Amino acid sequence: MFVIDANSKTPLHIQLYNEIKKDIIKNYKLGDKLPSTRKTASLYNLSKNTVKSAYSQLVVEGYIESYPQSGYKVMDTLNIDYSKIEGLNLGDNKDEEDYLYDFFPVRLEKGSFPLKIWKRIFNKVIDSSLDFGSYSCGQGEFELRVEIAKYLNDYRGVKCQASQIIIYDGFANSMALLANILKQDYSTFAIEHPGYHYALKVFDSYNYKIKKINVDENGLNIESLKSSNVKIVYITPAHQYPTGVAMPIANRQKLLDWAKEENALIIEDDYDSELRYTSRPIPSLQGLDANDRVIFLGTFSKSLSPAIRVSYIVLAKHLLPLYEKSFEFDIPKVSLMTQKTLEYFMKEGHWERHLRKIRTLNRKKHNLMEKLLIEKLGDTMKIESKGGGLAILINPIVPFDWKLLKELALKNKIKLYFAKKFVGDEWNAITLGFGGLKEIEIPKAISIFSKIWMQSIKK
Amino acid sequence: MFVIDANSKTPLHIQLYNEIKKDIIKNYKLGDKLPSTRKTASLYNLSKNTVKSAYSQLVVEGYIESYPQSGYKVMDTLNIDYSKIEGLNLGDNKDEEDYLYDFFPVRLEKGSFPLKIWKRIFNKVIDSSLDFGSYSCGQGEFELRVEIAKYLNDYRGVKCQASQIIIYDGFANSMALLANILKQDYSTFAIEHPGYHYALKVFDSYNYKIKKINVDENGLNIESLKSSNVKIVYITPAHQYPTGVAMPIANRQKLLDWAKEENALIIEDDYDSELRYTSRPIPSLQGLDANDRVIFLGTFSKSLSPAIRVSYIVLAKHLLPLYEKSFEFDIPKVSLMTQKTLEYFMKEGHWERHLRKIRTLNRKKHNLMEKLLIEKLGDTMKIESKGGGLAILINPIVPFDWKLLKELALKNKIKLYFAKKFVGDEWNAITLGFGGLKEIEIPKAISIFSKIWMQSIKK
Repeated sequence: MFVIDANSKTPLHIQLYNEIKKDIIKNYKLGDKLPSTRKTASLYNLSKNTVKSAYSQLVVEGYIESYPQSGYKVMDTLNIDYSKIEGLNLGDNKDEEDYLYDFFPVRLEKGSFPLKIWKRIFNKVIDSSLDFGSYSCGQGEFELRVEIAKYLNDYRGVKCQASQIIIYDGFANSMALLANILKQDYSTFAIEHPGYHYALKVFDSYNYKIKKINVDENGLNIESLKSSNVKIVYITPAHQYPTGVAMPIANRQKLLDWAKEENALIIEDDYDSELRYTSRPIPSLQGLDANDRVIFLGTFSKSLSPAIRVSYIVLAKHLLPLYEKSFEFDIPKVSLMTQKTLEYFMKEGHWERHLRKIRTLNRKKHNLMEKLLIEKLGDTMKIESKGGGLAILINPIVPFDWKLLKELALKNKIKLYFAKKFVGDEWNAITLGFGGLKEIEIPKAISIFSKIWMQSIKK
Repeated sequence: MFVIDANSKTPLHIQLYNEIKKDIIKNYKLGDKLPSTRKTASLYNLSKNTVKSAYSQLVVEGYIESYPQSGYKVMDTLNIDYSKIEGLNLGDNKDEEDYLYDFFPVRLEKGSFPLKIWKRIFNKVIDSSLDFGSYSCGQGEFELRVEIAKYLNDYRGVKCQASQIIIYDGFANSMALLANILKQDYSTFAIEHPGYHYALKVFDSYNYKIKKINVDENGLNIESLKSSNVKIVYITPAHQYPTGVAMPIANRQKLLDWAKEENALIIEDDYDSELRYTSRPIPSLQGLDANDRVIFLGTFSKSLSPAIRVSYIVLAKHLLPLYEKSFEFDIPKVSLMTQKTLEYFMKEGHWERHLRKIRTLNRKKHNLMEKLLIEKLGDTMKIESKGGGLAILINPIVPFDWKLLKELALKNKIKLYFAKKFVGDEWNAITLGFGGLKEIEIPKAISIFSKIWMQSIKK
């Protein structure tokens, strides 16, 4: 028998829901029947609607199921604890809390998002007389595109107009748009090897023939590309993923020449370019191109927030009519409020200030982590990639017990990530993200990591 | 010579930008050179940076281009007026302003969005301690999915748990996700004829073999479906698009039996179901299904706002592992702020209140428009679809001059839409949207429309 308190501030149906839930977890087996709503209502002197509301909450959360005639039963999929549903990751991120340090490579410090400014601007936006009853512009708000074009011209050396920019909701969908509109004229797709395998997966899902082109100390090997007979190439020239190589100017020119001669297209993913710590940001390949062969991809995920879901495409001009014919052209991808807030955020100069701040913050963390790794791991490791972005990638150069490392990481409550997950299975490195850690946490985090690293070296 | 006022509140570079822009439009020809930044700076006693800033604004807006060595030239694509760029719709929607009445079929009254409540909740959300430095859950925030599951269980008769729901950014991308994850097991796709051709286009872009199944007075013809040998069918059973037919219960059962026998999948697009005016909303097909054969699609575009970009998928349970293996699983589609705001909007009961309000509002407009059409057009027309959604579809049943109608609409400044655009070329009707019009505007709008309709009847 539960205690339902009519004078409590918690609504009755929530009290009942909480009590039944506890009861199910403690006392019920799969398939057990719950008392009928009528019975429960009379037992606790509640209205039938109150009971129904509690039961329906339990249904949607998967604790119970409703069967016609036979009433409510505790679910036969052992769906009592969400985290236990077979094979389902419900993504409520409960597990993250359990780690002392999480080295996730694409993450910013929680406090780094400019909440106060964003809030002020959002309120301004919502008080302005926008029309939320209509579809906004499918390509993205014109004024936001102007701001992005200005930024790209000034800071990334991208030569573009607002009319070439498409506002999108993230990398994967941007790539899917490209794969879709290009497939009537193209059927082959080259990607760096090692490279970012999400890019590959998207084009693969549209049935492109995929070629992997080796990356050497100058980035993508241009000769291999030339002999591959491929017409679209996806590259990360500013800070190659995952090796961190920046493509030298001579190779950039060769790549552009190739594209011109072959009438090929280059998809330049400007991945991490804003976060360079050892040199100035390297101007884009797009800005060097005089033949309209480059499509440029950028995102606000890495330097503003991965949770606001805003990225953009700078389309080559000759592809605009193709895009306009696609049905995607009519359909906006990002909420009007977010677009307008970002527009004013950029227009009022906050974006530039924020970039400077975030770059300084992460440079410090990068340098500190690098220094500590060298100090503590010495010549047992090779740094595979550093100098930019939100992670340092390392590999052991001594006999190493990977399985033990993973076990020890778990035991010591640090969460490690491996490049494999993002690169596919052929290439690996431990990806030590510093973006999500506070500067003050890094010494302790690396200290624990170093200890388990040393223990994992095979004697 | 321009007047630049150092004491004005408008920044100097904006003043300069405005003056040069006017000057270009009035006095320049294509390819004309602008004075160098140095020259302009000294002429107006401005800093070179001020001038550069004005020039760079003109560059991104496409008025001028910068050429190495030779400086700034007025663009040779006659890019002076954005609306004139060859073949480009820049989507700044200028033309809408020129219409007296716009009958766009997917639109809500500007004032109907609950701005005040949304703003209050957004501010609460942003003051709560959310993490904008990390990726949020790829499937969508769990608590929002619980709210949607509750709503669907209670109001749409959908039997689902939060774990089956995926938050998405609109119909087209939802369909693309399905096309992508299903293509390893399925290769055929059936759609109603006439039907919503965006759905067809998405599956077509993933190379499915497409079959069109005729719609009769009971909706999709089940016998034709059975003989088509297709394994996925997309339908709009609540309010068939574009005919408005609701599928009767007997046919629903037959459809579900077919899916069970054939191990086929039904994609139920719950298009317009919340906006029924002549009957209660018809419970979903998904709720009748006992064999996990239905995928259910819903959206907030039609009853809350098309500008916030939130839709959802209720996946069949057995497809969840397939979805989790896709790379889409890791990637959220809607900003965390929007998701959390919507969650509290639903949790606090505003969504139900809003739905009632919007349904009443649009029922009145629907009934008024229907009455006026019958009054004024009498037996010269047939109503193809009514009783739900945001538009009434009609066709003439007398000899009719379509070209004249279009000309007269233009001349009388009313914007008409034709079902063709959404259905493909095979089926047509005039789609008279009432959602975006105020009730008080409808008599005048229909009065003008009736006049030009009558003039377009061939004598």
